[in-house]
Order: sequence, then structure tokens, then C-alpha cells
Amino acid sequence: MDTLIYKAGILIEALPYIQQLSGKTVIIKYGGSAMINDDLSRTIMQDITLLKYVGVNPIVVHGGGPEITKMLEALNIPTKFYKGLRITTKEAVEVVQMVLTGKINKDIVSQLNSLGGKAIGLCGKDASIIEVEPMEPVDGVDLGYVGKIKNINCRVLEILAKDEYIPVVAPIGVGPDGESYNINADTVAGELAAALKAEKLIFLTDIDGIRMDPQDPESIISVISIDEINKLIHKNIINGGMVPKVEGCIKALKKGVNRTHIINGTIPHPILLEIFTDKGIGTMVTC
Amino acid sequence: MDTLIYKAGILIEALPYIQQLSGKTVIIKYGGSAMINDDLSRTIMQDITLLKYVGVNPIVVHGGGPEITKMLEALNIPTKFYKGLRITTKEAVEVVQMVLTGKINKDIVSQLNSLGGKAIGLCGKDASIIEVEPMEPVDGVDLGYVGKIKNINCRVLEILAKDEYIPVVAPIGVGPDGESYNINADTVAGELAAALKAEKLIFLTDIDGIRMDPQDPESIISVISIDEINKLIHKNIINGGMVPKVEGCIKALKKGVNRTHIINGTIPHPILLEIFTDKGIGTMVTC
Amino acid sequence: MDTLIYKAGILIEALPYIQQLSGKTVIIKYGGSAMINDDLSRTIMQDITLLKYVGVNPIVVHGGGPEITKMLEALNIPTKFYKGLRITTKEAVEVVQMVLTGKINKDIVSQLNSLGGKAIGLCGKDASIIEVEPMEPVDGVDLGYVGKIKNINCRVLEILAKDEYIPVVAPIGVGPDGESYNINADTVAGELAAALKAEKLIFLTDIDGIRMDPQDPESIISVISIDEINKLIHKNIINGGMVPKVEGCIKALKKGVNRTHIINGTIPHPILLEIFTDKGIGTMVTC
Amino acid sequence: MDTLIYKAGILIEALPYIQQLSGKTVIIKYGGSAMINDDLSRTIMQDITLLKYVGVNPIVVHGGGPEITKMLEALNIPTKFYKGLRITTKEAVEVVQMVLTGKINKDIVSQLNSLGGKAIGLCGKDASIIEVEPMEPVDGVDLGYVGKIKNINCRVLEILAKDEYIPVVAPIGVGPDGESYNINADTVAGELAAALKAEKLIFLTDIDGIRMDPQDPESIISVISIDEINKLIHKNIINGGMVPKVEGCIKALKKGVNRTHIINGTIPHPILLEIFTDKGIGTMVTC
Amino acid sequence: MDTLIYKAGILIEALPYIQQLSGKTVIIKYGGSAMINDDLSRTIMQDITLLKYVGVNPIVVHGGGPEITKMLEALNIPTKFYKGLRITTKEAVEVVQMVLTGKINKDIVSQLNSLGGKAIGLCGKDASIIEVEPMEPVDGVDLGYVGKIKNINCRVLEILAKDEYIPVVAPIGVGPDGESYNINADTVAGELAAALKAEKLIFLTDIDGIRMDPQDPESIISVISIDEINKLIHKNIINGGMVPKVEGCIKALKKGVNRTHIINGTIPHPILLEIFTDKGIGTMVTC
Amino acid sequence: MDTLIYKAGILIEALPYIQQLSGKTVIIKYGGSAMINDDLSRTIMQDITLLKYVGVNPIVVHGGGPEITKMLEALNIPTKFYKGLRITTKEAVEVVQMVLTGKINKDIVSQLNSLGGKAIGLCGKDASIIEVEPMEPVDGVDLGYVGKIKNINCRVLEILAKDEYIPVVAPIGVGPDGESYNINADTVAGELAAALKAEKLIFLTDIDGIRMDPQDPESIISVISIDEINKLIHKNIINGGMVPKVEGCIKALKKGVNRTHIINGTIPHPILLEIFTDKGIGTMVTC
Repeated sequence: MDTLIYKAGILIEALPYIQQLSGKTVIIKYGGSAMINDDLSRTIMQDITLLKYVGVNPIVVHGGGPEITKMLEALNIPTKFYKGLRITTKEAVEVVQMVLTGKINKDIVSQLNSLGGKAIGLCGKDASIIEVEPMEPVDGVDLGYVGKIKNINCRVLEILAKDEYIPVVAPIGVGPDGESYNINADTVAGELAAALKAEKLIFLTDIDGIRMDPQDPESIISVISIDEINKLIHKNIINGGMVPKVEGCIKALKKGVNRTHIINGTIPHPILLEIFTDKGIGTMVTC
Repeated sequence: MDTLIYKAGILIEALPYIQQLSGKTVIIKYGGSAMINDDLSRTIMQDITLLKYVGVNPIVVHGGGPEITKMLEALNIPTKFYKGLRITTKEAVEVVQMVLTGKINKDIVSQLNSLGGKAIGLCGKDASIIEVEPMEPVDGVDLGYVGKIKNINCRVLEILAKDEYIPVVAPIGVGPDGESYNINADTVAGELAAALKAEKLIFLTDIDGIRMDPQDPESIISVISIDEINKLIHKNIINGGMVPKVEGCIKALKKGVNRTHIINGTIPHPILLEIFTDKGIGTMVTC
Repeated sequence: MDTLIYKAGILIEALPYIQQLSGKTVIIKYGGSAMINDDLSRTIMQDITLLKYVGVNPIVVHGGGPEITKMLEALNIPTKFYKGLRITTKEAVEVVQMVLTGKINKDIVSQLNSLGGKAIGLCGKDASIIEVEPMEPVDGVDLGYVGKIKNINCRVLEILAKDEYIPVVAPIGVGPDGESYNINADTVAGELAAALKAEKLIFLTDIDGIRMDPQDPESIISVISIDEINKLIHKNIINGGMVPKVEGCIKALKKGVNRTHIINGTIPHPILLEIFTDKGIGTMVTC
Repeated sequence: MDTLIYKAGILIEALPYIQQLSGKTVIIKYGGSAMINDDLSRTIMQDITLLKYVGVNPIVVHGGGPEITKMLEALNIPTKFYKGLRITTKEAVEVVQMVLTGKINKDIVSQLNSLGGKAIGLCGKDASIIEVEPMEPVDGVDLGYVGKIKNINCRVLEILAKDEYIPVVAPIGVGPDGESYNINADTVAGELAAALKAEKLIFLTDIDGIRMDPQDPESIISVISIDEINKLIHKNIINGGMVPKVEGCIKALKKGVNRTHIINGTIPHPILLEIFTDKGIGTMVTC
Repeated sequence: MDTLIYKAGILIEALPYIQQLSGKTVIIKYGGSAMINDDLSRTIMQDITLLKYVGVNPIVVHGGGPEITKMLEALNIPTKFYKGLRITTKEAVEVVQMVLTGKINKDIVSQLNSLGGKAIGLCGKDASIIEVEPMEPVDGVDLGYVGKIKNINCRVLEILAKDEYIPVVAPIGVGPDGESYNINADTVAGELAAALKAEKLIFLTDIDGIRMDPQDPESIISVISIDEINKLIHKNIINGGMVPKVEGCIKALKKGVNRTHIINGTIPHPILLEIFTDKGIGTMVTC
Repeated sequence: MDTLIYKAGILIEALPYIQQLSGKTVIIKYGGSAMINDDLSRTIMQDITLLKYVGVNPIVVHGGGPEITKMLEALNIPTKFYKGLRITTKEAVEVVQMVLTGKINKDIVSQLNSLGGKAIGLCGKDASIIEVEPMEPVDGVDLGYVGKIKNINCRVLEILAKDEYIPVVAPIGVGPDGESYNINADTVAGELAAALKAEKLIFLTDIDGIRMDPQDPESIISVISIDEINKLIHKNIINGGMVPKVEGCIKALKKGVNRTHIINGTIPHPILLEIFTDKGIGTMVTC
């Protein structure tokens, strides 16, 4: 009985956080290691389903991970890179779309639904949610079917998220002639948060947040302003895959999103930890 | 961090129970010792506020307690009893109403609101929610302004409970000529649960449930059917203040309420324990 | 038959006034002598019920009257005064609340309902409708639990008043820590009218309106502007209990209430006389 | 002031009748002498506008009167009669429609609107509200464009009457090929009351009600059952223009209309007298 | 089968035009020759009904035509003219109203309904849709009951047009004292388009559009600006009945109507030709 | 101009068919040859988009076609068959899902959207629209992940289809433990039509309908009853891929679908031909 009472007390601790987010939209970018570890991903799916049931409206944006590469290899589709960016051919983008929307997206939907959620898997082509144009060439090198977001049509996401559903969005956009484009999932998360005027934007990554010294896990920054981020990018302290994340935060903050977080998705229940504690975890990016 | 993760796990444990009650009405009869112990009553108020925020629609019915007697004494209004029932004069019922609706009811409202709830205190006279007629005389002795419920008009409770409010109902009914009547709060809870077709009816009492041997706390009955209750009343094993509680359960069950419980309100967080555990606590009365 | 036709003609006379107020909110401050004379109070309750049924949305704010004093005396709770203001102790405010919300409020509700209304009795603690802070000390004398209005949360009043209900509000506010505060009912009426952007605010008093010569009933002022009121307060011609009434009018007028009236509640049907005649009765305060 | 108070009392007398009809539909058949006397018709229009503003939903059905005959004469269109029934040629029905929908209907609309109503003039051809087929020949004599009601499409009337509008309906129906048919206005009133499940159906006529002795104004019948009506028709005591009225009542009663009345429209304010008195006036036809 | 496929292709050609007008309001002024040729008017009615069924909200305004004159003659009501304008006496305006609202309006309603539409015939007196004042005298000559539009109350038109109905409006307005006024139907169409912020305003006339040389059918102007129109009016190239049409266009354009057209109503299906072709037909008036 | 008028006439011919289907649901099963011929599939997509814009609510169910086989081969996943049925391994069903939901489904979505539609691609796993259990073994041979429909949750389809969206459904179901199952698309179409109580169910196939003599294209049956179908199945005249189609028709008819059709999807605009002609094309299956 004492254990039960202790547990009840913990539920009560969550009350003020639930009150604060009640009826609000939270965008969760989900990808990387968390996605491929079944135990971790299960705790994340539980977190999202719980959010939905306590009155928050979560929307999930997911990335790709190693399955795309595996499938491209299995199909013998060669991929060239330029400065670390994949040059995406017509043949490749079809596989990217197929794996993202036909495999990963539906797996997440399945996991959420088996926990009692009512998830709906979508991509940016559905109802033209994400309209893109080709990314500008880099040093004159055409990246192919890599998209830059031009416009977000988020009405169907709002209808579903305010109803009993959890939208799960794959980062595929629709080009001017209806063709598919691969888009950075972090960028999608930031743009959707901005368009939906979400309350919160959460990036689940593989590390604990932004580090002053990329090699030192102890050098995590708790809170960082947009100005400071720009300096760190300039100094190349923030680089690589962290750049689209912090840019997503900045984009969202400028459009009125309240709090943006970059947190470690490789610990159990990272979303609840972020949402149901006073200071959250990882790095909070602020205006 | 480990503690946080452990706590998150406990929130997740609650998920299936939240899913099951989402959007449903739960009637909570609150009274007795729990009401006069500040620490206990605070955990109960927290439980109710949490329920509201996770999507359940709680409605509270409260009793009177010692404050009525104290006030009657302070005002030198004598009270006679017949076979343990208070004979309520016109003078007395005014004091009963004043203490119930003007003190106890508003105290509960205040407690809920200070935890972030939006409680609304009402009694059966408001919008004529509870219409009564005088209780039949017992052995020819007229009990005065003690009411027997004739009709429930629960529309305003539904409007408020489905909106963001928590209705708190004092057990005063309105008689044929608009006069006030005292009503047994357990009976009010049962009738409201029946009229609202609530999902659940919970009686918070001073003991752990129904006992086979009233003197033996270990003889708690976990589950009992309507038939068995009638036998125990007949054998006088169920008697006194427990009778209106089990009758409230029976009334509610017959009108379609799903689960009715008689539980111990003198342990912390009794409502969460009842709702967020598989077997609940105390005694469940079933069809 | 001729009498019937004459009566029908009188109904028709009311038509333009009904058309003008259709769907609009009218705040009625009710207190003083009218409240304790059964015949008068019945005509006032009839007026309010009629308003509701012809499509106007009345909200009643009531004061206390002699019952509070009587109860404080009966309970031997001493009350000190400073410059005519009651110093309200913790003990006293509990009695004030109990009498206002548990007796007077429910009596008004009962009267309205017995005439076919659907009244709902509330106070400023319900859904935290009226948030207050302690009134500033007067000459350094702390008045205790006397509240100054900080904020009005009128959503629940709007929901009920636009539906089939008549809200009846007792002038008890909620302090920063959930404690009860006594508030001047005239002030409550003015603030609610302002917050709800009511069409009309009516104060029922014991005299015919504002008098140029307080001793001369013939010196009633029909229409008075805010500027002139300030002069009369300065000259001490408007003083005592009339001050919060005219201040309520001014507050309400500044927030967009259309017409504010101070009228005699000791004649039968004062509200209908005010509403269903061209010039109204008593004193109209204008911008 | 005493006169004002007396008048207020009369408004209050109307309260229970207003409560009873609040939100309900009342069909008023208006025609005959009342229609051509400006003073009388003004009191009737006032009655209807008042009903609308006190929350009742009136719908007016009107007849033709002498203007049709006058216009037919002015246009030299001859009209034959057979057994008192007008044989309506194609040429004649056009004039009938024009006068009914283009003159009388719009005049009623104008009168109601000048009193603050929002009347909308319609006929059975609009949205095919009244679908008819040709009346069967009488003794083999074809009556031409005289319609028998086959079907009522009352949705547009419901939309308008539940909104702020007062529908005014001219008794022209639409035939199988879109052609116009003249219909008895009493029959239209009965059928509309039946289709709309109105609360009340009122026929305004030139006499006080049904008389046992048609020559004796004192022989008015207060209440009459369907059975008794059939006997009186059989005995030819009810005959002529009274027949479609009582048949309209019977039709409406059988479909669930609560009260049907045949009253004298040549006294001022006949509708208010009928509605706002306990026993009503004229003859009530009951099940 | 090939014919069928060809026909299907034609339906598909209409798709982009349907998409563009979906849910929008189109005002159609209908009158003149088209109205009196049964074959032509049938194609126009088909066009309007089709618009309604493909999701556009058409509202029809009609004029009078020769029937008014015929009826005035038949009734021996003399009509004087001054500078081509009819001086409308009280006697005359009654006939004008009767023919417009009781004959022509209901004929259009009937035609639309026989094609499956749900048309509702109204005039400016219904719900006081069109409030007018007397037109100023011309050279000191009083034109009588000829109205100048003061105010449009278009709510009932919006309710009906957004629902399944097609409003058909006769150009009769209501004066300050409820009297009827004749109004130019072209002016009514322009004012309604402006008040309803219609997407499109279409005048069906007897010629192909505005001609540079009124005698030369080949001199049709495809597109003309407001400025150019004013010059052509000044030069008397636009004159007579064309003036209120172009003024209606200008009025509507200034209030935000997107496209206004003056087209030939004497060819079959003129509305579909205008709407479902890229450049439309006739003359388009632009800002 | 004459061509334009002719085209307008063709639009008008469609009017009665549009009126009849207005606001109703039409399920279209799309697959086979039509799907892989770009010109044909474009006409089908145009037909569906047109339906949406003229007020019909189309829902598309698609099959797989040769792309699944191609992908399985490319990935060297062997597929065994038993009696013509594919034995679907865990490995294979993942590829089936990926191609169906990640390639074919999104291609259809893209095509509809590029024509102005707002298509949303879903499968039976989204919001658990299609719950399945494993198909019973055939002759003791386990078919693996081939699903038999147990339950349809069509709420999200209704929400989207009644709004501005066109749902496109891939035939993947969700098993008891959240795993994916391949389902026959014809069966899915029939079950969805039944669950949604669609007005019409259309199967687009490669031949003109059901043939009495499978070898003789001239032996098409225009109309066939359920009884006759059962006989033809028994006689093996209806066999192979036609069986699930006719069973889908029967299932749907029994649940109240009005008309079910098996038509040739290899002619241009087959849906418009079916819907906008009196007798439709192909074979109609009736009760």
C-alpha cells in the first residue's frame, strides 16, 4: 500500500506540468539511435501516448536512419556524396520515400497504436502538407531531389491533432511538379512547429544536448540564446547534424513557439523527463 | 536521473487506466474523517484535480460532518433524534443548508481551485438539480425537513462537467414549495451517478470497505453482488451509515453505472489508488 | 373581454423595449430594504424571471443586509468598526460567507426557481470568478478580510447566462491564497457589468435615486454625468453607501456599459418600470 | 407611478404563458375581415411580433380575401362557380398567385417589419414547400388549378422560424410540372402545423368560434372533440368555410399538435388573448 | 462509347473553373430578352442549377420586362415618363410589385425548382433586405415611388445561399415607412454583390457587351477599366440602360468583388460560357 | 462559339447525375492495367478529382500490381505459391507494405494533388482502420501474413472524406499484435463500402464486366443478381480474381450500399462514364 501511495504522489507531481500544456501542440522530432533500440523506442512511444491522453496534442516527425542506406545497398543503387551531403537521384529518392513512408512511418504508427494511441502516418505529399523546391546547388554541385521547404499546409494536421489522432510525419516533400523530395527531418520539425505555432518543439538526439566542447559530455549547455548559437556556429563548435536542429529551434522561436529543446533520446522516457520536470533536460534554446 | 526515469515509468503505468476513463464521468462521495484532516483532504483534492486534467470528468458530492452539529450548538438550536435519525426543524434545516452550502461546499471549492482546478459549488436547489419530497414518517414520527429524492435535473452538471469545471454538490434538495430539505449525501451520490449514467461511483468512507465481521478489519470483502448485499443487510451485518452507501451503489448499478466502490478515504490519494490499480481498493459492489 | 384587450395592449407597449434588450446582459444589484420585504422581493423576482423569458440575460448580484449582523451576534463574534467600515476578522469573514452564500444566495435562487426560473447561486470563489487582494489599510488601520477586486473571470457566468440559467452572485472573493474576502456588493456589480460588457447596470436602493438635497425626496436628479458626480462627491452631497454605487456606474460606463441606473427598489416591479418605460425611473448616470 | 406598477403586474401575468410556449412553433391562419380592417390587422401584427420577441416561433399563413376577386374583375377574367367552388382557369390562377404572393403576402411582411419583426414572405412554390396534385373533380366538374396537398417540405420554414425570422406563407402550391395551384389557406395551415409538429394552431375567423346554432352567437362551443365535430359536420351544423378549418385542426391534432383553436379575429389582439389567458377564447378542438 | 469519352473529357475541362469558384458567391442579373424566350431562359436556369450543384452559391436578381407594362395597361393605370424615366405613382408601384414578386419572381423559382434546384423567391421588403429612400427629383420632377438604395441587410441571403437554396431577388425595396419602391434591377445586383462580397457579378443583357461604336456589333470591348468607363460615359458612348450596369460593376469592384462581366444573355448557356472559359465572354469591367 | 455552347450542353447533361450523388460516398477500387498506363490513370485521377469538386465524396482503394513482384525480386526474396495464393513471409509482407504504402499509395496521392485534389494516403494500420486476423490455412497450408478482415474503424475516413480531402487507402491491415498483413484490395473495397454505407462501389478492372463466356467479350452481363452470381461461381464461370470483386459487391449490397459496379478501367474516364450515364457501363451487381 505504501508503494501505491508513493506512486500516486508521483502522479500528483505531474499535475502542474499537465495543466500547463493542456490542449497545446508539441512537436517531437524522433530519430537516430533511439529509433533503432526497441526498449528505448517503446518508452518514447509510451511518453507520446501518455501526452495524448493527458490532453496534450503531440505530432511526431521522424527521420530515416540506417534502413534507407541498407535498402539502397540491397537494391544496388549507388549514392555519391559531396561535402557530406547525399546527392539524391530520381531512383534514390523513390527508395528514400518508400522506406520512410512505407516502413519507418508505419512502424511508428503501429507502435503507438499498440499502446492505445490512434496514430495516422502521413508525409509531406499528403494534402501537399510540405511544398518544396530543389535545394540550391552547393559549389555548383546539384544535390538532386533534396528539397528546401517553400510552404506548409498544416490544416489536416490540426484537424487530426485536435481530434483523437496522433499525426506521424515522414520528411518527404512535394515539388512543383508533384515529384518527391527528401528533406532534412530536423528542418521539417522546426517548420511544422513554426506553422502550427506549437507550444514546444523537442529534438530527440543521441547526445545530452549542445556541448561547449564537443568531446566533453560534461560541457553541456543548459540554456542558450539565439545570439550565442550563431556565435558557436561561426566558431564551428556547433556543426554537422546539430546545425539543422538549432536552426529548427531558431525558426520556431521566431514564429512564436514557446520552448525548444535538444535532448538525449537514448535515455528512457526522455519526453516525460523533459516535460514533467521544472528545468527539463538537455539544452533549451531561447529567444 | 534514475529517479526521474523511475518516476516517468510510474506515469506510464497509469496510461491504460487514463485511456479507459477518458471523457467519462466519475462521482465521488466525500465526507467523514477524510474531510476534517487537512493532509488527507489535500491528497484527495489533488486526486480530483489530476483526474480532471487527464480527461476524466469528476463530480464531487460532499457530506456534512461535525461542523453542522457545532453550529447548531453555538446557535442553541436543540436537535431531537428518533432511532438515530435527526428530526430536522425548519430552524435547523436553515443552519444545515448554511453550513453545507456556505461553508463546507465553498471550502472544497477553494481547495480544488488552489490546486489549479476550476470548481463550482452548487446544491440541489440550484437550477432545481435535486427535487425532493418529505421523507415518510418513521413509526409515525415526522422527521421534518429530511428529503426523499423525487427527481434529478442534471443538465447544468453535465454542461459544467464536460466543460473545464468540477461541480461540487452539497446535499440540500428543493421541496415542492421551494423550501430546503436535508438529504443523505450518500443517497445524493448514488442518484446523481444513476441520472448522469456515470462510469464510476466512489464512496470515500472511514474504513477499508465492507467487513464480514464489522469488528475485524481483516474481514474486508473485495467484491460483492447486489444479492449478497441484500442478505447482509437482512442479517444486520451491513447496517448504520453503510446502508445508504450500498443502496446508492445498487441504485447506480441498476441504472447502468459500471463500477461502484466503497473505499477508505483515510489513506492518502485514495481515488488514484482506486482508479489507477487493476483491482482497485476496498469493496467493489457489482450487479 | 375589454379588460383582456386592455391588458394585451399593455403587453404590446413593452414590445419595443424587449426588442432593444433582446439577447443582451443586464446586471441587477439587489439588496437593502427590497430584499427583506417579501412582497417587494417577490415582484423583483418576477421581473427578473420575466426578463429571462423575453430573451434578456439577467445576472443578479446581491448584498447582505441585517442577517449577517444577526448571525454574528448570535455567535457572539464581536465586530469593531473604523470610520464606519467593519473590521472583518478571519472568524467574521467565515460567518459573512456562510450567511451570504449559504442563506441569502440560496433564498434568492429558490424564489426565482419557484417562479419558473432556473437560477444558479454562485460566489466569487466558484471558478475563481472574483479574485481579490486585501483592501489597503485606512489611516493605517487594517480592515482584515475586506477585498479589493483584482481580476474577474467571467466565462462561467457567460456560459450560464447565455444558456437557460440566471446566475445569482454573492459578493465573496477569493484571495491570493484561496482565503475568503468580503467585498462591497455594489462594487462587484459594477465590475461584473464592466467585465461582461453588459448593456445595462441597475442598482436597486432604498431611495428614488441621487438627491441634490439628501433630505429632500423631491430633489431627485434624473440624469447625471460622470463629471457632475465627481463634483457632488467632492461637495459631500454624494456620500456613504451611495459612493460605491456611483463608482460602480462610472467603472461600468468606462468599460462600455450602455446605461447605468440607480433606482428605488422599494416600489413594486422596479426593474420592469426601469426597463419598460422610455425615461426609466430614478437617476441615470451617463458618460 | 401606480399605473406603471399596474402595467408591470400585467406583464408578469403573462409570464407563465410565455414560459410554456418558449421555443415552440405556433401556426396562425390569418384572413377574412381582420385582414381588411387596418386597426385590427395592426393589433394582430403586434401580437405576432411580440410572440417572436418573447421566444415563441410564429409562422403566418394567410388567405386571399376580396382583392383577388377585385383584380380578376379589373382584368375581365370571368370566374365560374360550381357548388360554391371557384373553377380556376390557367389565366385565373396566375392572377390569384400574383395577388396572394405579390400583394397580400408582401403587405403582411411590411406590416410585421415596420413593427420590428423580420418577416420573410414565401409561398408553397418556394423550395417546393407545398407540393400538390389537382383536386379531384366534383360531380365530374373539373375545378382546374385547385390543388390538393400531397407533400410538405418544411425545412426552410424551420431554419427561418428558429432563426430570427417570421415566415409568412401564401397558399399557392406547386404541381407535378411546376405549375401553380390555388389551395385553401385553412388546409395549408393545418398541414403545416402537422408537418412542423407545431405546439399550437390558431385560426382567426370572423366569428367567435363554432356555434351549436349558427344563427345564435351565444351558442359558442368552448371545447369540442374530433368525434363531436364529425357528428356536427354530418348534421350540417358545421358547414361552408368552417369545414376546412375543423379539418385542419383534426389533421394537426392527429399529427401531434397540442392545441388547436378557432377564434374571432375581429377583436383587437386576438392572438394574445388566446395565448395569454388560461382558457383561451373561441372554440378549442381537442383529440 | 467514343462520344461518351469525348463528353467526359469536356466535363474534365470544367474542373479547374469549378475548383476556382468552389464555395464562392456569384450574383447573376437576369432580365431583358433572355427572360422572355423560353428556350434561352431554360438554358440559363440550367446553368444556375448546375453552378449550385458543383458547389458555387448563385444568387439571382431579376428585372421586370414587358409584363409590367402589359399589366399597367390592362388595369388602365396611366404612366407618364420624364426624360425616359417612369414616374411611378402609388397605384403603379403596387402593380409593379405584384408583377415582379408575384409573377416573374415565382416563375423563375418554378423553373429552377423543376430542374432540381431549391429556389426561394424574395424581394427587398422581405427581412428588409433592401432599404431605400425616394430617388431625388430630376429637374425638379418627382419620380414618385422610385427608390435609391440606402442599406442592404443581406444576412438571410447568406444563410440561404450557403445552405442548399438559390435566392431569387425581385428589385422592390422598402421605404422609411414600410412602403414599396421600384428599384433598377442592375443597381440591386451591383449593391448585393458589393454587400455580399461576391466573387463575381454577371449582367445578362441583350447585346454582346460594351461597344465602342454602339451601332457596330464588331466593336465589342473585351476588358475595360473603371477610368475608361467614366470617359465613355462622359462621351455618351455608354448611355441608357448600360449606365446602371457599368455603375453596378464599379460599385461592386470597389467593394472587393473580383470579376464583373456584362455578357450576352441571348445565346444559350451564357453563364457557363462566361464561367467555364478562360477569357469569359462579353466585356469584363476591371478596377 | 457553337462548340462552346455544345460543351455547355454536355455539362448540363451531367446535372441530374450530380444531383443524385451530391454529398454521398463512392468507393473506387483502382488497380490492374489502368494503374500502370499513365494516360489512362490520368483520366481516372481527373474523374475522381471532378467527383470531389461536384460534391461527391470519393474514397480510393488501390491494389498492388507488378511493382511488388519486381521489388521482391530485386531484393531476392523468394515467394512460394499454393493454389495460386502467395505465401507471404514476414520478410515479404514488409516489402509488400513498403511498396503499397510507400510507393503506389503516394504516387496516387501525388497524381490527385497535381490535379487540384487534396488526397491523403493511408493504410489499414493508420488509426487501426482495418483490423485483421490471419487467413485460415488452405488445405493445411499456412499462407503467412495474409489477413482476413475482422473489424473496420472508419471514423477517420469519414472525417476526411466529408471535409475537403480524398482518402486513398492501401490494402494493408493490422494484426492482433500490431503486425502488418497483406489483404486483397477488392475485399478491402467491399468492406469499406459496407462499413461507410457508401452510395456506390466501383471496381475498375481490365475487362468490360462479367462475361457469360469468359472467352467472349460480347457476352458481357449488364445486370446480375446475387443469386445468379452464386450460381455462376458454382459453375466456375466466375472465378479467379473476379471472385473477391463479386464478393465485395455482395457484402456491400447486404450492408445497404445502393449500386455496385464492375467496369472496365482501361477506357478513358471510366468513372465518369459509369456515373454520368443512365445505365452505367460494365456489369451492375444488384440485390
